Amino acid sequence: MPWNSLIRMAKFHGVVMEQKAFQDYYKDHSSHCYGCGRLNPYGLQIKSYWDGDETVCRFHPQPYHTAMKGFVYGGLIASVIDCHGTATAAAASYRAQNREMDTDPELRFVTGSLHVEYHLPTPIGRPMDLRATIKQIKGRKVVVKVSLFSGDKLCAKGEVLAIQIPDKLKNMVVAP
Amino acid sequence: MPWNSLIRMAKFHGVVMEQKAFQDYYKDHSSHCYGCGRLNPYGLQIKSYWDGDETVCRFHPQPYHTAMKGFVYGGLIASVIDCHGTATAAAASYRAQNREMDTDPELRFVTGSLHVEYHLPTPIGRPMDLRATIKQIKGRKVVVKVSLFSGDKLCAKGEVLAIQIPDKLKNMVVAP
Repeated sequence: MPWNSLIRMAKFHGVVMEQKAFQDYYKDHSSHCYGCGRLNPYGLQIKSYWDGDETVCRFHPQPYHTAMKGFVYGGLIASVIDCHGTATAAAASYRAQNREMDTDPELRFVTGSLHVEYHLPTPIGRPMDLRATIKQIKGRKVVVKVSLFSGDKLCAKGEVLAIQIPDKLKNMVVAP
Repeated sequence: MPWNSLIRMAKFHGVVMEQKAFQDYYKDHSSHCYGCGRLNPYGLQIKSYWDGDETVCRFHPQPYHTAMKGFVYGGLIASVIDCHGTATAAAASYRAQNREMDTDPELRFVTGSLHVEYHLPTPIGRPMDLRATIKQIKGRKVVVKVSLFSGDKLCAKGEVLAIQIPDKLKNMVVAP
């Protein structure tokens, strides 16, 4: 394994052990997402964390998440980029307000648009490591750039336009 | 139910009954996709069909495919757009060569890029109907535009850049 892979892995585990995932701060009514909801037992349970000014996410594809044998399904890659992107938008917005993620008012985001470029086939037998940066925060909109690695190889790049959830939709969702 | 919804549904069922799905023409080694592979029992089993010069796909989300309660997960929407887009690219390429989809040489596509715009929350209790048009066929690249409806409502739009699978990757995949 190349030396910088070891550094990345050690750093990732260091990050994970010190922090609670962004998604685990979401309130119950926001935790049913198939991608990242802690209350969705059938879902992917995607988890995101801070690493300095960037955010990270490690995801282990299941053996059946195939595109073709040996490679990860592009729709799964899009899904992980999507949830890591919107979670990053939420975390960045709390941080911009100097607030913890468990404080009110709640800041939750939906996806306005998602763009993914697939550069290399992503091997399925190893974790996918995502890193995201905040490109822009403007009003209720946050643009997040995401890179997806397999080991050292950059396999995909994504951009997520996340929009802070409108109050009218929030009321629809929160209502019992 | 609005009258034009009834027409769309009837038309969709008419289309389905007359045709074999694009994905069901794929050879065994190309049929393990989590999104649309007929040999992936854990997958979504997405199916696409011709409707004149356009292609259609109807997908029924599972109750656990939630974004928030009552609405479909954006990653699932991206996945269905992705597989319907690459399948449409394959079907259009065979058609451009006046060939049936079960003839050799095999034409299979991977996703080069995927763009999705989410216009409205997509209700989870009803099918999603996708329609796709071919924007461009140029060499090994095909650009497909996809619209996703819930009933009459346009909920999402997508664009898929599909790339005919490179021979070197094909050899990796086909090898036992």
